[in-house]
Amino acid sequence: MAVKIFLNEDEMPRQWYNLAADLPSPMQPPMGPDGPVPPEAWGSIFPMNLVEQEYSTERWIDIPEEILEILYRWRPAPLKRAVYLEKMLDTPAKIYYKDESVSPAGSHKPNTAVAQVWYNKQAGTKMITTETGAGQWGSALSFACSIIGIPCKVFMVRISFDQKPFRKTMMQTWGGKCIASPSMETNAGRGFLEKYPDTPGSLGMAISEAVEAAASDPSGTTKYSLGSVLNHVLLHQTIIGLEAKKQLAKAGIRKPDIVIGCAGGGSNFAGLAFPFIQDKINGDDITIIPVEPTSCPTLTRGLFSYDFGDTACTTPLLAMHTLGHSFVPAPIHAGGLRYHGMAPLVSQTVVEGLAEPVAVPQLECYEAAVKWARSEGTIIAPETSHAVAVTIREALKAKEEGKEKVILFNLSGHGHMDLLGYAKYFDGELKDYALPQEEIEKAESELAGLPPAAISKTGKW
Amino acid sequence: MAVKIFLNEDEMPRQWYNLAADLPSPMQPPMGPDGPVPPEAWGSIFPMNLVEQEYSTERWIDIPEEILEILYRWRPAPLKRAVYLEKMLDTPAKIYYKDESVSPAGSHKPNTAVAQVWYNKQAGTKMITTETGAGQWGSALSFACSIIGIPCKVFMVRISFDQKPFRKTMMQTWGGKCIASPSMETNAGRGFLEKYPDTPGSLGMAISEAVEAAASDPSGTTKYSLGSVLNHVLLHQTIIGLEAKKQLAKAGIRKPDIVIGCAGGGSNFAGLAFPFIQDKINGDDITIIPVEPTSCPTLTRGLFSYDFGDTACTTPLLAMHTLGHSFVPAPIHAGGLRYHGMAPLVSQTVVEGLAEPVAVPQLECYEAAVKWARSEGTIIAPETSHAVAVTIREALKAKEEGKEKVILFNLSGHGHMDLLGYAKYFDGELKDYALPQEEIEKAESELAGLPPAAISKTGKW
Repeated sequence: MAVKIFLNEDEMPRQWYNLAADLPSPMQPPMGPDGPVPPEAWGSIFPMNLVEQEYSTERWIDIPEEILEILYRWRPAPLKRAVYLEKMLDTPAKIYYKDESVSPAGSHKPNTAVAQVWYNKQAGTKMITTETGAGQWGSALSFACSIIGIPCKVFMVRISFDQKPFRKTMMQTWGGKCIASPSMETNAGRGFLEKYPDTPGSLGMAISEAVEAAASDPSGTTKYSLGSVLNHVLLHQTIIGLEAKKQLAKAGIRKPDIVIGCAGGGSNFAGLAFPFIQDKINGDDITIIPVEPTSCPTLTRGLFSYDFGDTACTTPLLAMHTLGHSFVPAPIHAGGLRYHGMAPLVSQTVVEGLAEPVAVPQLECYEAAVKWARSEGTIIAPETSHAVAVTIREALKAKEEGKEKVILFNLSGHGHMDLLGYAKYFDGELKDYALPQEEIEKAESELAGLPPAAISKTGKW
Repeated sequence: MAVKIFLNEDEMPRQWYNLAADLPSPMQPPMGPDGPVPPEAWGSIFPMNLVEQEYSTERWIDIPEEILEILYRWRPAPLKRAVYLEKMLDTPAKIYYKDESVSPAGSHKPNTAVAQVWYNKQAGTKMITTETGAGQWGSALSFACSIIGIPCKVFMVRISFDQKPFRKTMMQTWGGKCIASPSMETNAGRGFLEKYPDTPGSLGMAISEAVEAAASDPSGTTKYSLGSVLNHVLLHQTIIGLEAKKQLAKAGIRKPDIVIGCAGGGSNFAGLAFPFIQDKINGDDITIIPVEPTSCPTLTRGLFSYDFGDTACTTPLLAMHTLGHSFVPAPIHAGGLRYHGMAPLVSQTVVEGLAEPVAVPQLECYEAAVKWARSEGTIIAPETSHAVAVTIREALKAKEEGKEKVILFNLSGHGHMDLLGYAKYFDGELKDYALPQEEIEKAESELAGLPPAAISKTGKW
């Protein structure tokens, strides 16, 4: 019999968990041309209530009651056991997953979209701009803006805009405006188009456009919203792992042996994993695996360095794993994993040895997604398929070793908007991409031009 | 605060409800050239265990434990209260809905797909054929065939195949084979294409093809499966209404005042409504509303008559509301509602005055769907939008009357595969279609050619 573990409304976590409070080394500050960036410098693009969260080192941060009420529309998200996949793989491993696909926008993204839009509303914001890769984030923000009541404009990476045309319609249904990026609407966009007229776009470029669109509003009431990478975004996602802990306890499981999440900017991985990394810091034996594509191997092959969050070099420098801000990843269908950088908090867990990243090629991920559909019955996002691919690897390893391991992964989103990728997979039109070594060398020289203090290859400071 | 009412696994209904046991007049039998069709005559296209259900007049039929186990993957489906829509409409009505979009295939269809494939497996079926309109049924059958282990072939109505290309990919992901209908694979299909080379297709044509593909297998192990219309299909859907009753009771509601479902072939409407029609027969005051498109107004303008279920006139004659078996509905986006006939059981509830059908034009339905998305937050199927449109009408009527009515409707499916329709709606490319009176006259003359016993305009026999 299928296993589903629900929580009641009154069992919902009432606080977010902030990993910054427990990391062995303190976080390195964001840097500007004149040294560390003070909180107030972010005020032109973010409301100050969110900037406070960005800089906070408090371990627990209360979730406002009104945000909980909105999250309750679809949360607590179910924890399910993948008994049919276990059977297909004939593994002794117990595979559990958090099903974040149940949100109205179809992924974990609304967890932070709702929080960010709510805090913006409190702060008097009249318009929100953002970027989106595969479209999950743009959809989530449009959804949140619709129900909370702030207009939004979404710059969507060109290749995903073309691959997933109905994402635009989805945003429009919620009243959001979606534009292919690079666009002619911003200086940054016009610049990219002039330099690379046929570019597939990238998250880095789209961020440049969305930041410019917010910062250039003379009234100061247009703000920018980011769907991943920053501390406050990851903070809002920790409700996933906090719920999962309570649910595992209900299933009689004290701790998972392995925790897995795909990692593009890092938010769904962090959301599930950070509460378990806290336990790991406190002594639990848990293997924590962020999974990325071999075509955009930020954590496994990128440099740990200060770098810009965007391609036009307009954001503060962040200490993170990066392939260089001008890197344009290959056109894989997991658009949400096509980002040159990585959340500083996630990067630091890797530097500290708390997380062990793995890169997986595209075809193995689609193969895993089809196995999932034909056993568990649901169609998952290409991003999520990265987590499933490594879950299958680990379940088969447990079988070889004859160990009854508990594997927990994050089913970050459904693939209903991503069927073009599946169609191409079945038609044999997809291929794997390895990152040429020249790209790493290019990143090294690009990063060498940044303030030297920004480079730390030892991981300790 | 949002209201969601769940049931536990042990609260799942263990029996289906058969309305045929309680109808004031007995059902009229299916007719063939030589009079009433005996059960065994269906054996060439259906397994006999399902034929038994088709003819059963037992009130309660046990749900096999193995089917319950599969349904438990996503059932019991939640009952939710649409508090945000209520607020948007400023209505005193309490709007509850059954959320059938939570199934792996995204609609109520897997409720019967799982049951039918399971009974076929028991009976030794090696291959299943079917037709699909919008694709919900074909996806559901592919899903069920995948997890139970029988290959399937789906004939998809051409216009929906073109409007919703990713439905094919969805079926393929579950291992199903999807073909646009009319096709060159069957005699019926070749005949339609010769006569109407540019036809958008219809459910009637697709049924002809799927029936032929099953009946023409000399081994006798290929069977046909229908996603609506027939008694056993509607039977399997009654789990929806039976759950809803238990859930309303948990919310302290003895009975709803109004029950609403969209009706194409009739299965999602019947699934929700039949258990409440039982209460109505037993004296409860409940208004029961099947909703159809004005472009295919089978219940509101069609004739109650014996007619073929398909366009090639290969099925037995069924006593139902019909627009004539050669009727090809306008190309509305609610593909699941483009059927010339209606389930005999649903038709009879209308003839008996137990249900009061309403027809709604396409644009009002999309307007309702957008209101739904911007209040409740989810994107619904165009078919479902018909139920929401009438829910809104009734909620506004309750407001005018100042009455705190309880409205219950069936959210039959999500619209993630139907965003092309939303896109055209936003671009002003959709229009309303009224049915010209000539079509009714054409149906009258077509039906006049059938055995005279087939016509009953009085509704009593």
